Amino acid sequence: MYIVNYKERDEAPVELNGSKNVMMRWLIGKRTGAKRYAMRHFEIKPGGIIPIHSHPEEHEIFVLEGEAKVLGDVAGLVAKKDDVVFVPSDLPHGYDNTKGSKSFRFICVIPLLENE
Amino acid sequence: MYIVNYKERDEAPVELNGSKNVMMRWLIGKRTGAKRYAMRHFEIKPGGIIPIHSHPEEHEIFVLEGEAKVLGDVAGLVAKKDDVVFVPSDLPHGYDNTKGSKSFRFICVIPLLENE
Repeated sequence: MYIVNYKERDEAPVELNGSKNVMMRWLIGKRTGAKRYAMRHFEIKPGGIIPIHSHPEEHEIFVLEGEAKVLGDVAGLVAKKDDVVFVPSDLPHGYDNTKGSKSFRFICVIPLLENE
Repeated sequence: MYIVNYKERDEAPVELNGSKNVMMRWLIGKRTGAKRYAMRHFEIKPGGIIPIHSHPEEHEIFVLEGEAKVLGDVAGLVAKKDDVVFVPSDLPHGYDNTKGSKSFRFICVIPLLENE
């Protein structure tokens, strides 16, 4: 068992093509005990975006701070602090904070599919 | 895809023997899209406790509010807002807010083992 503040985890820019002003931390990953799924922390800074993309991994998301437009089949909707977002496998999705004045921060849990 | 405030999910008391003043919500469960793992929200109110227990499901936890003593092999340590907690399979663990003056709230992700 361990307890660690999320800020103690290394932060790196998200490399997805078209992403802007997005930082990611692996909170619980394969090297830190995750067996079936991993917990990551994302921060999309004001002016930032994760553009529409898709992949087989579903997302289980909890929003910690701020708000952003969600891109995809719920286009026009906004996710904000205390919201839960579920993104099924292979569904196009993205998060737009380009008009925002504060960071949009969220927890995103993904399966470690290569283990299956 | 869906977006829902966590408070829109039903809340029920935790029935674990010895638990006191603990409420739980299934944020993303089998009935709401979860395939491999589920996201739950726990609130241990001031004076509340989840006593030491264990089970095969590992926990990936993110603390949203408050603080509590963590019971088990990190006895004496405190988990607080913005902390990440990992509890491996079958490791005894619990959370003690009996001396607390505010709620201890956290996200806890568990595998849906019966699907494996």
